[in-house]
Amino acid sequence: MPLDPQRFLDDLRKLRSFGASGVGKGVVRQAYSDADIAARKWLAGRMKKAGLEPHFDPLGNLFGLAAEKSLLLGSHSDSQPEGGWLDGALGVAAGLEVARAAREAGGPPISCVSFQDEEGRFGVLTGSDVWTGKLALAEADGFADNTGNTLADMRAQIAEQAGDFLPHSRFSGFLEMHIEQGPYLEETGLRLGVVTDIVGIRDMRITFEGRQNHAGTTPMHLRRDAFQALSAFNAVLNSRFANVVTPATVWTIGHVALHPNASSVVPGRVEFSMQWRDADAGRLARMEAIIEDTAQEIAASHGVTAKLGPVMGIEPAAMAARFQVELADAAEALAPSKWQKMPSGALHDAANLATVMPAGMLFVPSIGGISHAFDEDTDEADLVLGLKVLDRAALALAV
Amino acid sequence: MPLDPQRFLDDLRKLRSFGASGVGKGVVRQAYSDADIAARKWLAGRMKKAGLEPHFDPLGNLFGLAAEKSLLLGSHSDSQPEGGWLDGALGVAAGLEVARAAREAGGPPISCVSFQDEEGRFGVLTGSDVWTGKLALAEADGFADNTGNTLADMRAQIAEQAGDFLPHSRFSGFLEMHIEQGPYLEETGLRLGVVTDIVGIRDMRITFEGRQNHAGTTPMHLRRDAFQALSAFNAVLNSRFANVVTPATVWTIGHVALHPNASSVVPGRVEFSMQWRDADAGRLARMEAIIEDTAQEIAASHGVTAKLGPVMGIEPAAMAARFQVELADAAEALAPSKWQKMPSGALHDAANLATVMPAGMLFVPSIGGISHAFDEDTDEADLVLGLKVLDRAALALAV
Repeated sequence: MPLDPQRFLDDLRKLRSFGASGVGKGVVRQAYSDADIAARKWLAGRMKKAGLEPHFDPLGNLFGLAAEKSLLLGSHSDSQPEGGWLDGALGVAAGLEVARAAREAGGPPISCVSFQDEEGRFGVLTGSDVWTGKLALAEADGFADNTGNTLADMRAQIAEQAGDFLPHSRFSGFLEMHIEQGPYLEETGLRLGVVTDIVGIRDMRITFEGRQNHAGTTPMHLRRDAFQALSAFNAVLNSRFANVVTPATVWTIGHVALHPNASSVVPGRVEFSMQWRDADAGRLARMEAIIEDTAQEIAASHGVTAKLGPVMGIEPAAMAARFQVELADAAEALAPSKWQKMPSGALHDAANLATVMPAGMLFVPSIGGISHAFDEDTDEADLVLGLKVLDRAALALAV
Repeated sequence: MPLDPQRFLDDLRKLRSFGASGVGKGVVRQAYSDADIAARKWLAGRMKKAGLEPHFDPLGNLFGLAAEKSLLLGSHSDSQPEGGWLDGALGVAAGLEVARAAREAGGPPISCVSFQDEEGRFGVLTGSDVWTGKLALAEADGFADNTGNTLADMRAQIAEQAGDFLPHSRFSGFLEMHIEQGPYLEETGLRLGVVTDIVGIRDMRITFEGRQNHAGTTPMHLRRDAFQALSAFNAVLNSRFANVVTPATVWTIGHVALHPNASSVVPGRVEFSMQWRDADAGRLARMEAIIEDTAQEIAASHGVTAKLGPVMGIEPAAMAARFQVELADAAEALAPSKWQKMPSGALHDAANLATVMPAGMLFVPSIGGISHAFDEDTDEADLVLGLKVLDRAALALAV
C-alpha cells in the first residue's frame, strides 16, 4: 500500500485524544503523565500492527524498528504543560506512516521513533540527551520536576516494558518533520522549510549593582541607578550587534528583577537574563565578547559594578548536506518555489541526533506563528504536503 | 537660661532610647507603636517641665503650647520601620529647646510640636495631612497598615490623653529643622541648607503591551517586545527631559514588572512606575506632557500599546520669603559662606503647614546622604550649629 495521508491524519487525531485539553485542539500530555504513557502504549500497538517491532528503552523513548539497519524518522509525543496538538506529534505520526507505507510497499527498511521528554519536564531534551550520550542516565535520574517528582520515579512506571538502549549503529540517519513554531513561513507565503542548522543557544545572568537611594533627595548626577545601567546596556548592545548578526540571529532580555523595585527608590540592583541564538558558534562567541565588553563599559560609565554569570550553552547543530539536498529536491518536486532553506531557532531532538548520525529536518508553517499554546495549528493541506515531501526524501535517503 | 546645646543633645539621645534598634544609632519607632507612644508621653513631660502646655490632638499630634499665639517649631518623632535617630527627632528636640530657652529667657512665645505618622504607616504625612485639612479624619480612620491595623484602632490608644484639634490661627508660622537625607550639602562642603521649596511629586504607572513570543523562533523584526519598548522609552525620555529640567529636577523608574519574565520568552507586557519631582508645578506639567507623548510615540514605533495610569500628585510648596530671609541671615551670621538655598526633594510636614501659615525649613547635612536606615547620622557640630541658626531665625520671626 502506498503512502496514505488519510491514515496519517487519523493517527494524528487519535494521538490528540490522549490528554485532549478540551480547549481548541490543545493537549496536556507531559512526559510520563498517564496520558503520555497511554499514548505511547497505543503508538506501540500501531507500530506492531504495521510490522515494526516496538521497543521502549530505559528512558521511555519508543522505537518502531524495521528488521535491518535503517533510516530513523520521528520526533516526540510528550507535550508542554499547555501544549499544541502538532508539536512533536506531527513528526511521530508522519514517521510512523512513512515507515509503515515503505514496509507495505516492499520499500527500503525505515524505523520510527517517539523520543521522551523533549519538552523538558526534567531536563532540556531529556530522552534524546540521554540516548545520544550528552547526559548520563544516573544524572538524569536525579532531576526533579516543578512538583518534586524525580525522573527515576517517573520512568519506573514503564520499567516492565523497557529494554536496553539501542546502539546508534542500528540507524543510518535521522529525519524529523516538525511545525515551524514561528511566523517566518507564513509571513513569506511559503509552505515548507528545509532546516540548515539548529541554532545554538547562549544564556547568562548579568547583575548591575549600583546604590539604592531616595528617589527625591538624590540628584541625577549622583545616582548609581541599576535600571539606567540596564537600559543603556540594552541600547548600546543593540547597536553593536548590528555589525555582527544575520537576519536569523536573535537575542532577548526576557527576565528582569529590580531591587528594591519600589517607585520611590532609585534601584540599587538589577539582575537580568541575556540570551542569544545563532547557527554559527563563532558568531555566538563574538556576541559573547560584545556582551562582556559592553557590560563592563556601561558599569564604568554608570558607577555600577557588573557581575556576569556563567555562560550556559547548547551548541549549534548543522543538518547533514545530503539530507538537506534530498529534502530540498523533494520540496521542489512537490511544491515548486514554495519552500526555502532556513535555520531552526527552536531546539529539536535532531540537534542531538546530529551528533551521532547524519540528520535532517523539515518544517511546515505554524498559523500565526503560535506554538506552546492550545491554539497552535497548521493547515491540513500543509500537513499532508509535509508528509509527502518527508516520504519522498526518506525513500531517496533509505536506499 | 539661654539656649543650651547640651540639654538639646541629651534630649535627642534620650529620644533615641525609645525603640532603640540596637544596630548603630538606629530606631524602630513607627507611629502608634509602644515605643512611639512612650516617647510622646516622655516628650509631653519635658514640655510641661519647660512651662509649655502639652496638648495631644485626636491624631496624636503633640503640641507644647506657649500661653499666647506664637511661632510653632517642630517636626515628627515617629520613625520608619527601620529608621535613623535624627529623621524627625532632630526637629522635635530642637523645637523643644528653642521654645524652652525662649520661655526661660523671657523671650517671645514659641510653641513646639511633634506630628504623628509623618512616615506614612497609614497615609503619606498622616498627622499634618489631617490637621491642615488635606485629609478628612473619617477617611484617615479607615486606612490600614501593612498588617491590617486601622488608624482608628491605633489612635484609640491615646484617646484618653487627646483634646481637640487646635485652630491654625493659634500660630503665626512654622519652622522645621531636618536632616537633608541626601548627599548635596556634604558633596559641596556646606553645613546648612535654607529650603526654598518642597518639591511636588508626580507618580504614574505605565503599561506597554506587545506580544509574548518564543525567544528562538521569533525574528527580531517581527517582535513586539515590551522590554525593548521600555528601554527605548527611557532613552528618549532622558534626552527630551534635558531640555526642560533644572539640576534639582529628578525622575525615576524604580519599579518594573515584566511578563512572563522568563529568559526564553520575548516579553509581552511590562508595567512600570514613572515618578518625577520638581519645585515648579508648570515644569511638572511639561514633563507629564513629554512622558505621554514619548510613551505613545514609542508604542507606535515598537508595535506595542501604551496604557498610562492616572497621575497621582503632591503639589510643590514654596517656603515663605520672610522665613527664607531670616534663616539665611542667621546661617550667614553663624556660618559665613557655609550654607546655600536649596529645594527639598523629600516631603516634609512643612509642605502641609505651608498651606495654612507661613513656613520655613532648615537642613543640616546627612553623612553619606544616608537616611531611612539605621546608620543615618550627622556630625554633632552640625546638629548644634543647626540648633543655633534655628534659634536665631525663630527669635527674629517671633517678635
